[in-house]
Amino acid sequence: MTNPADQLINAADEVKIRQRLVRVALGHEPADTRLRVGKLLDVHSRMWLDDQEIIIVGRRIAYVGPAGSYPGTVENEVHEPDLMAVPGFGEVHKHIESSHVTPEWEAALVLPHGNTWTCEASHEFSNVNGARNLEFWLKARLSGSPQKIFPLPGSAVPPTAFEWGGGHFGYDEQLGFLSESLMVAGLDEVMDWPAVWNPDNPSYDRLWGMIEATFEKRGVIEGHAAGIKDLPTINAFGAAGLASDHEAWTMQEVLDKLRRGLFMELRPHSLPEMIRGLMDAGLTEWSQFALTTDDRSCSDTMKLGATDHNVRLAIEAGLPPEIAIQMVTINPARHMRLTPWVGSIAPGRFADIVLLDDLAKVGIAKVWADGDLVAEAGRYLPSVPRIDWPDWATQTVNITRDLSAADFAIPAKPGRDTMTAALLRPFHWDDDFITMDLPVADGHVQRDPERNVTKFAIVDRFSGQGKTSAMFWLGTGPRTPDTALACSMGHDKHNIWAVGSSDAAMAQAANALRDTQGGWALVREGKLAATVRYEVGGLMTCRPPEELDAEMQALYAEGGKVDWMYEPTFSPRWFPGFPERLAFATLTCAPWRWVLVAPSDRAPDGFVNVATGETHAIVW
Amino acid sequence: MTNPADQLINAADEVKIRQRLVRVALGHEPADTRLRVGKLLDVHSRMWLDDQEIIIVGRRIAYVGPAGSYPGTVENEVHEPDLMAVPGFGEVHKHIESSHVTPEWEAALVLPHGNTWTCEASHEFSNVNGARNLEFWLKARLSGSPQKIFPLPGSAVPPTAFEWGGGHFGYDEQLGFLSESLMVAGLDEVMDWPAVWNPDNPSYDRLWGMIEATFEKRGVIEGHAAGIKDLPTINAFGAAGLASDHEAWTMQEVLDKLRRGLFMELRPHSLPEMIRGLMDAGLTEWSQFALTTDDRSCSDTMKLGATDHNVRLAIEAGLPPEIAIQMVTINPARHMRLTPWVGSIAPGRFADIVLLDDLAKVGIAKVWADGDLVAEAGRYLPSVPRIDWPDWATQTVNITRDLSAADFAIPAKPGRDTMTAALLRPFHWDDDFITMDLPVADGHVQRDPERNVTKFAIVDRFSGQGKTSAMFWLGTGPRTPDTALACSMGHDKHNIWAVGSSDAAMAQAANALRDTQGGWALVREGKLAATVRYEVGGLMTCRPPEELDAEMQALYAEGGKVDWMYEPTFSPRWFPGFPERLAFATLTCAPWRWVLVAPSDRAPDGFVNVATGETHAIVW
Repeated sequence: MTNPADQLINAADEVKIRQRLVRVALGHEPADTRLRVGKLLDVHSRMWLDDQEIIIVGRRIAYVGPAGSYPGTVENEVHEPDLMAVPGFGEVHKHIESSHVTPEWEAALVLPHGNTWTCEASHEFSNVNGARNLEFWLKARLSGSPQKIFPLPGSAVPPTAFEWGGGHFGYDEQLGFLSESLMVAGLDEVMDWPAVWNPDNPSYDRLWGMIEATFEKRGVIEGHAAGIKDLPTINAFGAAGLASDHEAWTMQEVLDKLRRGLFMELRPHSLPEMIRGLMDAGLTEWSQFALTTDDRSCSDTMKLGATDHNVRLAIEAGLPPEIAIQMVTINPARHMRLTPWVGSIAPGRFADIVLLDDLAKVGIAKVWADGDLVAEAGRYLPSVPRIDWPDWATQTVNITRDLSAADFAIPAKPGRDTMTAALLRPFHWDDDFITMDLPVADGHVQRDPERNVTKFAIVDRFSGQGKTSAMFWLGTGPRTPDTALACSMGHDKHNIWAVGSSDAAMAQAANALRDTQGGWALVREGKLAATVRYEVGGLMTCRPPEELDAEMQALYAEGGKVDWMYEPTFSPRWFPGFPERLAFATLTCAPWRWVLVAPSDRAPDGFVNVATGETHAIVW
Repeated sequence: MTNPADQLINAADEVKIRQRLVRVALGHEPADTRLRVGKLLDVHSRMWLDDQEIIIVGRRIAYVGPAGSYPGTVENEVHEPDLMAVPGFGEVHKHIESSHVTPEWEAALVLPHGNTWTCEASHEFSNVNGARNLEFWLKARLSGSPQKIFPLPGSAVPPTAFEWGGGHFGYDEQLGFLSESLMVAGLDEVMDWPAVWNPDNPSYDRLWGMIEATFEKRGVIEGHAAGIKDLPTINAFGAAGLASDHEAWTMQEVLDKLRRGLFMELRPHSLPEMIRGLMDAGLTEWSQFALTTDDRSCSDTMKLGATDHNVRLAIEAGLPPEIAIQMVTINPARHMRLTPWVGSIAPGRFADIVLLDDLAKVGIAKVWADGDLVAEAGRYLPSVPRIDWPDWATQTVNITRDLSAADFAIPAKPGRDTMTAALLRPFHWDDDFITMDLPVADGHVQRDPERNVTKFAIVDRFSGQGKTSAMFWLGTGPRTPDTALACSMGHDKHNIWAVGSSDAAMAQAANALRDTQGGWALVREGKLAATVRYEVGGLMTCRPPEELDAEMQALYAEGGKVDWMYEPTFSPRWFPGFPERLAFATLTCAPWRWVLVAPSDRAPDGFVNVATGETHAIVW
């Protein structure tokens, strides 16, 4: 892999960079810039220092000390006497795919919010094109984007043994990634818990192979312990070597996991409750904690903020600002073994600095990255590099035929007026699926909108054949006739999912996504009412966040005209209205049991219990 | 390298071990032992938990939880209702060679003091036999010793470009070590600062090559910043990627280094002052600190303790015991990226547990390691494995001739009554050496005991030829006639050094070490008065600490009959009486300037300024 200058980290260039930093620190060679600040937060001691100067050469910090103490010469002088310097904020676990913009546009979106580095939880794009995963994530940086993306290859490629598609990672692949680049910090969230604990699970060897390769290369093994709440399983999870969790849903769960050695990554939806609870419990040791985003759409980031939003929530919940800042700087950097490069304002690190004008409110006046001012008053200053994403990134919805209503029909047995159907609903994590008797008409089993029953389908977008599995779902989908919603983001395999009140509308929506190469498609009363383009990997767009947001707002507006079914399942994951979160209701990791996936040899109808491998008929 | 069971860590076995731990944690397979304790310190939250059970299988912890919560069956039940469990103590930077016992005996010495794991700063043995370094350090463990030794190959092999001998490490060697075993955590203390900052230094490429290999393998790069106190050099040190320091001598130095991102390893001699000073300065964040021993003889360990002594000092200085314990458990484990294995009582880790009966006094009632009780009331319980150390370890004083007085003589120029001599003294760190006019007799320059001047020599023990360099030293050595002290421990190259009131006595003492294959030899008034055997590497003995201590006491007793010169140099490094610390006065790393080393092409008389490479005549 080519590595111009110090954009990407590799050992040979690292030595050359640091040899120069040493000469500059000693004053033997001139520096580029002196950034003098009114206050500086040293996250190592959690202490503020007054009137400090940060001496920068190239993209790195060479020297930090009291103003006027640097013995060398500098070319540019910048003085911010009224601002407080804190280290660039890091995300310890984020799926940039969920922003739905490509990495160069993600930088434009989040750098004004102080987020200068991100451990990319990369199994979304990996499941689309596993072979190109690393190339994809490093391309923006190589094109000059100031954000540092550290891709962690996903363990969930494929998410379970019952799925297949654009990527397949095991020991060899993971060893290759970790060997290829020091930007790869480890193995991303191990999610398929039944495949970790159960030797009979067909993904057992694949997953442990990735774990082995990560140990071998001294990488970090990230965990995902959703729904794992009992002490034996928490202990087993820790014993497996899975070093973190970002899925704790209660304060007790946080404590139970922390005490088994897991690094705790708190997400916004539960963060205030957790922080308050932990403070009430008397916790004073926060070095084993980080704040992180996981998934946030660019529309939400534009509204709420990025990492700064998480810090703000923690402070509002009562945490001292300095500790909250440690939880997005030194703590995650240390956990991810990235301290030589990020996490503090110290020599050797990238010159990534957030300048605050209000500590308690995390008021971000300016952001520096790579030694330059990159954002001011929320505005991104650099020009976004133009990347002509190649076909391997933009041609990923591979369906070589027209889908038709017949692809979504569910035939009845001859002579039956009703048939019993297996049903799921969003975030249905019970051991058993639901059953209902559904009417038969025209030789096919029918929806029952009166009882909140519609049809849900998965369309394979990798084989070219558009293999489809369909079943009845409860509590979601349009009641409006001839209406369907489809999306090429369907965690974590990212086949197309479609939900609709007619088979024809479902086919129409899926065909629209084939034509746009991914995104959202809403068919309302037989007409294509809105599309949103995710033309890169079927997950992201290579356009400004504002442009994508406008498309999303148009989709929401059209979606607002549809009558959506609803029934509550797992709060806060599922709520009434436009069913955007169906994209996450296709997950197959723990704590999921019965799921619908694209047809495979192991699950010909696509209906499988991912915890046990059991399959079942859709109707009988 | 063979790896029976889980004695050494490697990725393939690690996976098998953890797969089993998972099954045991879930209760699917029986465990070996339940250790139920009255209290348990969770170092992740820094909280005490009452009445906990630790479930052990093999050498590892499978489960930790409230007593009675484990769902599986166990074979052995142990209940310690009155004891407090804390994690096994770790040394982040220790030269086991300085204990002067081989690793299996080190275990017997320090495990009763709670020290279950040690990051071995291995440049002592490396300089004797670099090729066998890893084999040497892992042998005791492979023979069943319960202590975990994580060897960090030393950067100081050789210590400076002006030394040579039993080892030479560069990029290739370091890459090899890190590839060979996961027990290797990184690169040990980078000490030759002039070779790091100065491209003209002949060790520059060798040292940066080791740094590069360590980055490449995601290892930790340890620093040694002795005498580095000014901000530019501290910044340059951090910018070089050197991630820690254990040599800060003042509180201000600690703060200045901490704030440049260095992990601070505090040693006993300065620890109480540092702790008190940092607490007075308002420090409340200690995650970037460890306590460590560096060097301690087995005689001193028997008197003072091992890691427990360091913890005790920190508590006596006012630090809460829980924080002091974090500084020898989770903090150093995290810094060294060893958290999957050591540093806390949590699933997956080695079952290494210290059971305290007195927290404030660090009263150690019992110690468990590898899942077994290994020490009780200060007594080591296992049988020490008998290791027949091979010739490559025991035949390391390679001198194939008799040394004679002539080897130590310093000829005068013809016709001179006096000559000017260059002098050093112990811990003389000035930029310049000392000069004095010394008398000439019988064609040779003479000592001047009246003015505290004696002779000091280095005898090469690696080439077979016993190449010798000698010069005059001030402020040390015997005033008693025909008396000499010699030792094969002479940091860090570990040639033989000798100091004596006559050349013949110096030769006699050095010859004695050739015969014993290393250790100490004291010749008093022409007679060999005492020897101490370090028959392994010339640095250690393969005997019980008690036996070695008895020999040392005999040496001290004989040494007490000698009239030793003294003049104060660098407190607390140098004090009156038996000059045991001359073994450290042969150091050549920063902040040393002028030193005496064995003759080399670069420094034919062995007298060289290691900071600049300049050489000078001994007399003129």
